[in-house]
Amino acid sequence: MSQPVDVVILAAGKGTRMKSAHPKVLHRLAGQPLLGHVLAAARGVQARTCVVVTGHQAEAVEAALPALAHGLSVQAVRQSPQLGTGHAVQQALPCLADDGLTLVLSGDVPLTRPETLQALLAAQAAGGPQALALLTVDLPDPHGYGRVLRDAAGAVCGIVEEKDASVAQRQITEVYSGIMAAPTARLRAWLARLDNRNAQGEYYLTDVVRHAVADGTPVVAHRITDPIEVAGVNSPAQLAELERAHQRRVAQTLLAHGVRLADPARLDVRGELVCGQDVEIDVNCVFEGRVVLGDGVRIGAHCVIADAVIEAGAVVHPFTHIDGAGQPVVVGAAARVGPFARLRPGTRLGPQVHIGNFVEVKNTTLAAGAKANHLAYLGDATVGERVNYGAGSITANYDGANKHRTVIEADVHVGSNCVLVAPVTLGAGGTIGAGSTVTKDTPPGALTVARAKAVSIPNWQRPVKRRD
Amino acid sequence: MSQPVDVVILAAGKGTRMKSAHPKVLHRLAGQPLLGHVLAAARGVQARTCVVVTGHQAEAVEAALPALAHGLSVQAVRQSPQLGTGHAVQQALPCLADDGLTLVLSGDVPLTRPETLQALLAAQAAGGPQALALLTVDLPDPHGYGRVLRDAAGAVCGIVEEKDASVAQRQITEVYSGIMAAPTARLRAWLARLDNRNAQGEYYLTDVVRHAVADGTPVVAHRITDPIEVAGVNSPAQLAELERAHQRRVAQTLLAHGVRLADPARLDVRGELVCGQDVEIDVNCVFEGRVVLGDGVRIGAHCVIADAVIEAGAVVHPFTHIDGAGQPVVVGAAARVGPFARLRPGTRLGPQVHIGNFVEVKNTTLAAGAKANHLAYLGDATVGERVNYGAGSITANYDGANKHRTVIEADVHVGSNCVLVAPVTLGAGGTIGAGSTVTKDTPPGALTVARAKAVSIPNWQRPVKRRD
Amino acid sequence: MSQPVDVVILAAGKGTRMKSAHPKVLHRLAGQPLLGHVLAAARGVQARTCVVVTGHQAEAVEAALPALAHGLSVQAVRQSPQLGTGHAVQQALPCLADDGLTLVLSGDVPLTRPETLQALLAAQAAGGPQALALLTVDLPDPHGYGRVLRDAAGAVCGIVEEKDASVAQRQITEVYSGIMAAPTARLRAWLARLDNRNAQGEYYLTDVVRHAVADGTPVVAHRITDPIEVAGVNSPAQLAELERAHQRRVAQTLLAHGVRLADPARLDVRGELVCGQDVEIDVNCVFEGRVVLGDGVRIGAHCVIADAVIEAGAVVHPFTHIDGAGQPVVVGAAARVGPFARLRPGTRLGPQVHIGNFVEVKNTTLAAGAKANHLAYLGDATVGERVNYGAGSITANYDGANKHRTVIEADVHVGSNCVLVAPVTLGAGGTIGAGSTVTKDTPPGALTVARAKAVSIPNWQRPVKRRD
Repeated sequence: MSQPVDVVILAAGKGTRMKSAHPKVLHRLAGQPLLGHVLAAARGVQARTCVVVTGHQAEAVEAALPALAHGLSVQAVRQSPQLGTGHAVQQALPCLADDGLTLVLSGDVPLTRPETLQALLAAQAAGGPQALALLTVDLPDPHGYGRVLRDAAGAVCGIVEEKDASVAQRQITEVYSGIMAAPTARLRAWLARLDNRNAQGEYYLTDVVRHAVADGTPVVAHRITDPIEVAGVNSPAQLAELERAHQRRVAQTLLAHGVRLADPARLDVRGELVCGQDVEIDVNCVFEGRVVLGDGVRIGAHCVIADAVIEAGAVVHPFTHIDGAGQPVVVGAAARVGPFARLRPGTRLGPQVHIGNFVEVKNTTLAAGAKANHLAYLGDATVGERVNYGAGSITANYDGANKHRTVIEADVHVGSNCVLVAPVTLGAGGTIGAGSTVTKDTPPGALTVARAKAVSIPNWQRPVKRRD
Repeated sequence: MSQPVDVVILAAGKGTRMKSAHPKVLHRLAGQPLLGHVLAAARGVQARTCVVVTGHQAEAVEAALPALAHGLSVQAVRQSPQLGTGHAVQQALPCLADDGLTLVLSGDVPLTRPETLQALLAAQAAGGPQALALLTVDLPDPHGYGRVLRDAAGAVCGIVEEKDASVAQRQITEVYSGIMAAPTARLRAWLARLDNRNAQGEYYLTDVVRHAVADGTPVVAHRITDPIEVAGVNSPAQLAELERAHQRRVAQTLLAHGVRLADPARLDVRGELVCGQDVEIDVNCVFEGRVVLGDGVRIGAHCVIADAVIEAGAVVHPFTHIDGAGQPVVVGAAARVGPFARLRPGTRLGPQVHIGNFVEVKNTTLAAGAKANHLAYLGDATVGERVNYGAGSITANYDGANKHRTVIEADVHVGSNCVLVAPVTLGAGGTIGAGSTVTKDTPPGALTVARAKAVSIPNWQRPVKRRD
Repeated sequence: MSQPVDVVILAAGKGTRMKSAHPKVLHRLAGQPLLGHVLAAARGVQARTCVVVTGHQAEAVEAALPALAHGLSVQAVRQSPQLGTGHAVQQALPCLADDGLTLVLSGDVPLTRPETLQALLAAQAAGGPQALALLTVDLPDPHGYGRVLRDAAGAVCGIVEEKDASVAQRQITEVYSGIMAAPTARLRAWLARLDNRNAQGEYYLTDVVRHAVADGTPVVAHRITDPIEVAGVNSPAQLAELERAHQRRVAQTLLAHGVRLADPARLDVRGELVCGQDVEIDVNCVFEGRVVLGDGVRIGAHCVIADAVIEAGAVVHPFTHIDGAGQPVVVGAAARVGPFARLRPGTRLGPQVHIGNFVEVKNTTLAAGAKANHLAYLGDATVGERVNYGAGSITANYDGANKHRTVIEADVHVGSNCVLVAPVTLGAGGTIGAGSTVTKDTPPGALTVARAKAVSIPNWQRPVKRRD
């Protein structure tokens, strides 16, 4: 019923104040490039297609697009030279079909909520099929922004730039956000009438408002009050400010869902954090990628967790670092992890597994009830149920060229400071004596020890301190 | 001289917005259930007895009471069905003696200071033996709260609910907090006159004010300005807000005492933190249970410390995790701990002991000057003075079924990567060679080594990378 | 051309509210004593000489001066007894030459920017060679401070103390900061006319303003608006407040330089942090001493880094602790460090070196491409290119009396849980078998193993749980 929406994203700007070698729109907010946030907003209005107008460092921006599209049909057009925002949208026109509505977004405005854009589109629809719809915002301090002019009836009748504004107009707090929606056919016509007779010699997108008004076309506005939604990133300070605003939003959403946060101002979620009931998150935790926390999960202070599924009732103690690198690390129900534990990609912990301090686990599965509580390394291993893996023990999984697996069958006890030289299998129920280096498979149920006999040399004289 | 005070705590509410499987009053603020804070306030006014009115999840709340009483005489009464706050207090009446004063508190209002309640009781006493005393608070935004009505002389003459308030009355910023004190005999009479002829069909405690006024009883108010003192917890967001307010209070108290905090906004104290002179606490530290820091103690950034006594001059480096689990871990005078150290229950460090990085200590005593500086585990051990415990060394204290003690006598040097298989005693002044596994007692003063001879195989061909 | 500037720093005060055994001016802000900040400001105006007036705990303050001078000519004079600020400056007069300008600073006012003092001196110069120049500040709440009185023409005509101020004068928001500059010869004359006929019986420096006005000397003011610049430290709460204000300044400076900070409110820089382009710093990092971060360096969350040079493209993962203790630890280009790594003094990592979790490195050089990825200790070692140092391996560098070096030549592979007993050299390209303790040099290209043969005892009966 409603018109298809095509999105144009302006992403050609230079971003000098970022003082960076990277394009501005690829700087990250909450772990995702600014442009990725804008593309997500485009997906949020079910955009039919999306045209990204590139310019400065166009190659880098274009190279990043495929990974950010997530199913959205995205194409890039180059703007060169860069002659203003109106000129930028003109470059996109060949990609836009006249049966649609064009929604113009900025690649450096990351925090516009999809609901806001939907409301803008609804305002456009309410204004009639020809209407031009502007997203406007009330700013406590509108200095520097183009003010929205309204006639006596309250209808939008123009936008005046700061430098052209009268003293009275400068009192207006409603400013144009840079975001607009218009029927593509009309937009095409208005853009064709733009000129660059202004101080900057640029073609301003804002001028389409004047042409729409001149045509007698309805100009409607969706007016919002939260400036964060339309704030652009021009400097690291602004990026940091929006990062914190975004994180506050995330924290409030989690709290509303019932998650207990020890300090909402000390939480960072860079990706998606899905929480069950009665989840508790202590101070200074950082979540990246996709993290799922089951009912009753508790995350201790100072944890960094990326790409993980932590099942119901599990407890992650402070100073734990989990990183699935894209595939979820799994922590089983009622498992205990940390403090000072590190779970690396390919780790799958069964129910009630315990991983203790100074223990690293990589590409390893531990079955229900297995424990590695102290100073240990488990890499490329399959660990059976109820195994007790001793303090200081190591799987020597790497021979300098290839990686090999260690299999520790159920109920094995590995003593302290052992080395298991892979490939090797420890038979079920066996015991490995402390300090043993095991290079061959061990039989089930047996005690296996590799150990030199202790010899004592009486009255041994210790080295004495040199005088240098 | 003054009347005995009996406290009624309303703890029957459902707390739907907490979105939790647990009763609201058992949610924790600063490590303690909300109800525990209210019971502490009751102890702060030397309450003779305390009646907790339970309802939703009554069993869980009642089961928690004994651990929260801390010497206060506490009993629970059930409110079922729940017909309003007045009805709730009615349930408590059979437990209240008429010679006393009843102080009504809410189980979800955790941060009322005892001084404030004492002032409320003093206001009641000043109002005469029959007086009803209300705790009131001025709110910048009183929306939604019952306003306090005063006559021309300033005397309290009623409370009007938001929905019943006139436009003028809605301008009043003084609101009733829900906390009141009244002679029990009078309260009993007023409560008997409550009715439920209102929109909710509930019996409101607030209505006793009307009856008191009608009786000509003096109604006095203790009026405060800090809304935190009377703020209730209805959602995780409110819980987090009060948590931070409480932590700011704690930080200000510590600063006033002379403690140097690197960032008062990044400190969490969940329990009791007792500090001597010239204590310094760096950013992001978390203290739980009872922690005592002696004169000149320095706590580095990002430490988590629960139940510990850290004596004068000791330094705890960043990323240290100490947990006494109810009994204090002791860190001796001028000891050095961390970074990345973990002291577990039963750890007692003597003066000038050094515990370094990636070292775990549990149920172990180290005497003066002993050192375990690198990647080591000491469990169930008694370590003598000046012992040097080498990097990578482990006490194998667990044979898979039982735990055994390791005794390391004074002046022993344990080399690197040793395993001490308990029960075992290393005689005073002995030396254990690197890489030794020791299963029997070693003689004093001797060098004990268990070590295989090294053999070199020349021109050894390393494995080559497989092509998969 | 301009007059030489001599600085007098008032540092005799007691600081009772600090509740400390240490002198107030030696308390640290951003890692440096307050007095050090003031001396830095003195250097910032190219002071010819600096006189520190000491009193309470004078010995401790004077003992600290040499380390804080950093090339500035500093001398101390004692004020005993302490009879007011004017009396304090009088003590400094014998050290001041009449050809100069005296700038009076306070030892407990740490955050005055050099630019501000330069502007004050410029204001003095603009006022004429005889002018007295005051630093003044507009305070939203001037309560308790001496107000600046101006005549109808706006010229400064006096300072009135709070207690002497009329109601109208108390409305004045411009207050005197305590900082002034005056020609030394004139200051000497004015100071000679001070008296102590006031409630406190003290000689007030402020009174020189009255004498200057009486003399018809121009009194000029440099008026600022940021109260932080002239805020004094009288309590731990004020110290913490200024610490955060300073850290916000530092963060804003870094952001303006292009550094990306995940949270500007969670950064601590105590010293000098020099950043290249495209540096990213995650939450809760602490930098101490001098730290240099090259282009593209990324610092993960929760790192503590003191005295280090981290070269371009290196990545420091979360929970990394680096401390050069005055000499820089070097992390080579594109190296990877952490998480949970600790680099101690004397560590130099070449390009592309990897130091992983639970690894401690001290007084050790690793050449390009060397790796120590898991649970290891490297102390007093020289590690060649491409060496792979196995999990759990230890350099036994300390024989209980002396430290010895371990040399691991290029391309050596050290297996897991080895001990290298120094002094020892592992020949190039050699391999050390897992679990070996190496006490003698090993030949190049050989496989060296010290390992007992594993023996299995079938049907071994594990210990059973005791019933106590």
